Amino acid sequence: MRHFLSTLDFSRAEIEALLAAARAFKAGPHAQTLAGKSIALVFFNPSLRTRTSFELGMHQLGGKAIVLEPGKGAWPIEFDDGVVMDGEPEEHVREVARVLSRYVDAIAVRAFPKFQRWEVDREDRVIQSFARHATVPVINMETITHPCQELALALTLQEKLGSLAGKKMCLTWTYHPKPLNTAVANSALIIAAKLGMDVTLLCPTPEYVLDRRYMDAAAEYTKAAGRTLTVTHDIEAGYRGADIVYAKSWGALPYFGRWDDEKPVREASRRFMVDAAKMALTPNALFSHCLPVRRNVKVTDEVLDSPRAIHIDEAENRLHVQKALMDALLRGVL
Amino acid sequence: MRHFLSTLDFSRAEIEALLAAARAFKAGPHAQTLAGKSIALVFFNPSLRTRTSFELGMHQLGGKAIVLEPGKGAWPIEFDDGVVMDGEPEEHVREVARVLSRYVDAIAVRAFPKFQRWEVDREDRVIQSFARHATVPVINMETITHPCQELALALTLQEKLGSLAGKKMCLTWTYHPKPLNTAVANSALIIAAKLGMDVTLLCPTPEYVLDRRYMDAAAEYTKAAGRTLTVTHDIEAGYRGADIVYAKSWGALPYFGRWDDEKPVREASRRFMVDAAKMALTPNALFSHCLPVRRNVKVTDEVLDSPRAIHIDEAENRLHVQKALMDALLRGVL
Amino acid sequence: MRHFLSTLDFSRAEIEALLAAARAFKAGPHAQTLAGKSIALVFFNPSLRTRTSFELGMHQLGGKAIVLEPGKGAWPIEFDDGVVMDGEPEEHVREVARVLSRYVDAIAVRAFPKFQRWEVDREDRVIQSFARHATVPVINMETITHPCQELALALTLQEKLGSLAGKKMCLTWTYHPKPLNTAVANSALIIAAKLGMDVTLLCPTPEYVLDRRYMDAAAEYTKAAGRTLTVTHDIEAGYRGADIVYAKSWGALPYFGRWDDEKPVREASRRFMVDAAKMALTPNALFSHCLPVRRNVKVTDEVLDSPRAIHIDEAENRLHVQKALMDALLRGVL
Repeated sequence: MRHFLSTLDFSRAEIEALLAAARAFKAGPHAQTLAGKSIALVFFNPSLRTRTSFELGMHQLGGKAIVLEPGKGAWPIEFDDGVVMDGEPEEHVREVARVLSRYVDAIAVRAFPKFQRWEVDREDRVIQSFARHATVPVINMETITHPCQELALALTLQEKLGSLAGKKMCLTWTYHPKPLNTAVANSALIIAAKLGMDVTLLCPTPEYVLDRRYMDAAAEYTKAAGRTLTVTHDIEAGYRGADIVYAKSWGALPYFGRWDDEKPVREASRRFMVDAAKMALTPNALFSHCLPVRRNVKVTDEVLDSPRAIHIDEAENRLHVQKALMDALLRGVL
Repeated sequence: MRHFLSTLDFSRAEIEALLAAARAFKAGPHAQTLAGKSIALVFFNPSLRTRTSFELGMHQLGGKAIVLEPGKGAWPIEFDDGVVMDGEPEEHVREVARVLSRYVDAIAVRAFPKFQRWEVDREDRVIQSFARHATVPVINMETITHPCQELALALTLQEKLGSLAGKKMCLTWTYHPKPLNTAVANSALIIAAKLGMDVTLLCPTPEYVLDRRYMDAAAEYTKAAGRTLTVTHDIEAGYRGADIVYAKSWGALPYFGRWDDEKPVREASRRFMVDAAKMALTPNALFSHCLPVRRNVKVTDEVLDSPRAIHIDEAENRLHVQKALMDALLRGVL
Repeated sequence: MRHFLSTLDFSRAEIEALLAAARAFKAGPHAQTLAGKSIALVFFNPSLRTRTSFELGMHQLGGKAIVLEPGKGAWPIEFDDGVVMDGEPEEHVREVARVLSRYVDAIAVRAFPKFQRWEVDREDRVIQSFARHATVPVINMETITHPCQELALALTLQEKLGSLAGKKMCLTWTYHPKPLNTAVANSALIIAAKLGMDVTLLCPTPEYVLDRRYMDAAAEYTKAAGRTLTVTHDIEAGYRGADIVYAKSWGALPYFGRWDDEKPVREASRRFMVDAAKMALTPNALFSHCLPVRRNVKVTDEVLDSPRAIHIDEAENRLHVQKALMDALLRGVL
């Protein structure tokens, strides 16, 4: 039994096989391979696409998804071991994961970081606890990475660009009034590198470079494929030659827990918003962004409404890749 | 592809065809005509009947409904075009409507007015935005009209009264401590007029007359059918001769945004509560009200528990008319 | 038509038949006996296991569950008759129960006590109102008893101990920082007594003895079976000879509405937490607790993680017993 917590745990061949399966699911009618199966979708944070695509995908495969929201409709949960539980949480993940494992065939979890201490958040304790105690596969619906978004991004890029080998991704930080999760940035970085792209990380200052775990993995992947991983703070250099501009905002790791100190740096970097002038620096690059996206803050209307924007396709592909993923995981062929 | 935003967009013959289809669905077993189809139910406001009847109705047709609550389990949404999204909303309806259109075969939306400026609310921006950007049919689950409630009311009246031509509806304002949506009042007005009833709108003062869009449509419909549309503030005149007393409370349009000024008018109109004495002014009229209803505030227990009350039947019929509606819309025969 | 509000309304033979049916459902593949049927799950309080097991169980039987949360996604509800509804509730249970009865084939309700006046709470007004006005079976998902938990507990004990006749249950109060519902304690007491166990109720002081309705029923059941019902405040006496230690925390009935006065009594009783030393007083007893459970507050990690702990099995069995219950109730064979 395998969990799907991070694509770091999966080979390039395994990822390519999932993408091929997703293409087959997308192509047309398919068997209800998961009839009689079920999945619990555990949301600690809001969701539109993830919830819809998982719930609908499982239904289309013949199975049943149950949506749970701990702390809202369901009890708050403790994740630390050995603790005296005299605070808010009414139950421990040891019970939750084991009980759900008795009911369902897989558990999917969305759990964003706490944004207080990155050294704690980077341990990804919530989903790691589920994985440790569950006796069924656990799927990451976004924690400190977002591997389902990676698959959707990769499928969409392959549809638009063909082979990704040697294509250039400009992964650009963009402005947002709040410090956001690094998950999608980490994910875009590692999946692009794994699939043989030249990757440029464009961000305002060295403080916005991503966690070493993902930077190192990307360096290793690009090196193995004979490609390059570049970090730049120069907008023109970042966009130059890009086949795909992938935008995301995130909070700088050194500022976790003292966000007031990050505010001036962030506010001074509003110029990173993706607009038509920057896109014109590229040889007609595609543009994408995971969703949600704030218009005219992260990206201008002009870019989002242009024919080169593929964010809606990427969102659609969440459905197809997750069907491939659930099918493979629950039938034990991954 | 057609949306179902208001019955103003549908001919009397189309409405009658939907009602006939609803009767057939209600009559007994039926095929799962929407197997493999799905619908997103997007709720910006609470719901009991709407949610249950849509979710269950879609299931009974063989399809799948997904329930989304933006601002609660899902991200808050922006509806204005061209805006710099630096406020609360995390995504724009342009993305939401287009992405959902990739996942599901129809989108149903409940979005009550903001109650600040009627001239803004009357544009029905939320659902109109969904309709503009969605590439699948959009269904109104109550915004500034409530067309599914109209169908349920019409079906119920036909069941109880036979042909509605020339029957009299007394549509009476009734008391509620808060200013409520005019949607169901607008809807009752236009569906009764469209189906050939004599319609009397009974309300405390001229300020409670409904929006000209609906008053004008009702006037046109009644005129075309050789019937009458009457506005009165005289309770006895309103009830006299009624075959159906349909009650609803709503906020007066001129007071939008300054509800403290409306309060004295409203409080002075508590006598409009429907009670047995008023019902006795009619020739044994039926009584109904959409739900929820506050007992002994809008209507007395005695009236609601009498054999002439048909509000439970009307609520049940939500299920049947919505099945007919989804079936027709999603099979493209409406 | 019967409701399932309390096991007090069902004979021992009926309960045993339900347990036998549950074993059959658990054993393997089964027919979708409730295809075309549906149930509304009405939650006034949080839930993880109850929601998952009912929603999934109904699906596995071929039917459809609809989840409703009055006061959150659905309108707040009034339960008193004859009241002028000018407060928070927007609708009356008379409407809710009757309308839902038109849509679905059963209504399940979770409604915890208000914890203000036990003499009011013990009337179990919310679910009793649903039962009075519904025209379909009503199922208790925990109010002032938790009969589905009873069935799960009984099934689990039978699996582990064989016949329960003459086995000893130590039903022990345990510490929790807040005064909790007596429901599961009431339920464990009456199901153990009904199934022929010797039952010892262990609690800090006479004030923690349970309501006379359940104490009297347990006394009657144990007397009829030639068994004993004992109340003790002596920990050693309570655990001695136990085959199963069943733990639960609850608020003392005399303190309802004045919980500050209970606090010193409660805080002085922290020693009731279940730990290995106490378990060692028994002849290798099993341990269980309904969930959620606070670790190292109600029970130590050591006990919960020991091979004698069967709380996960009990939680799993919720699924199987509820399938048996829904199947029997909705097919009219209970």
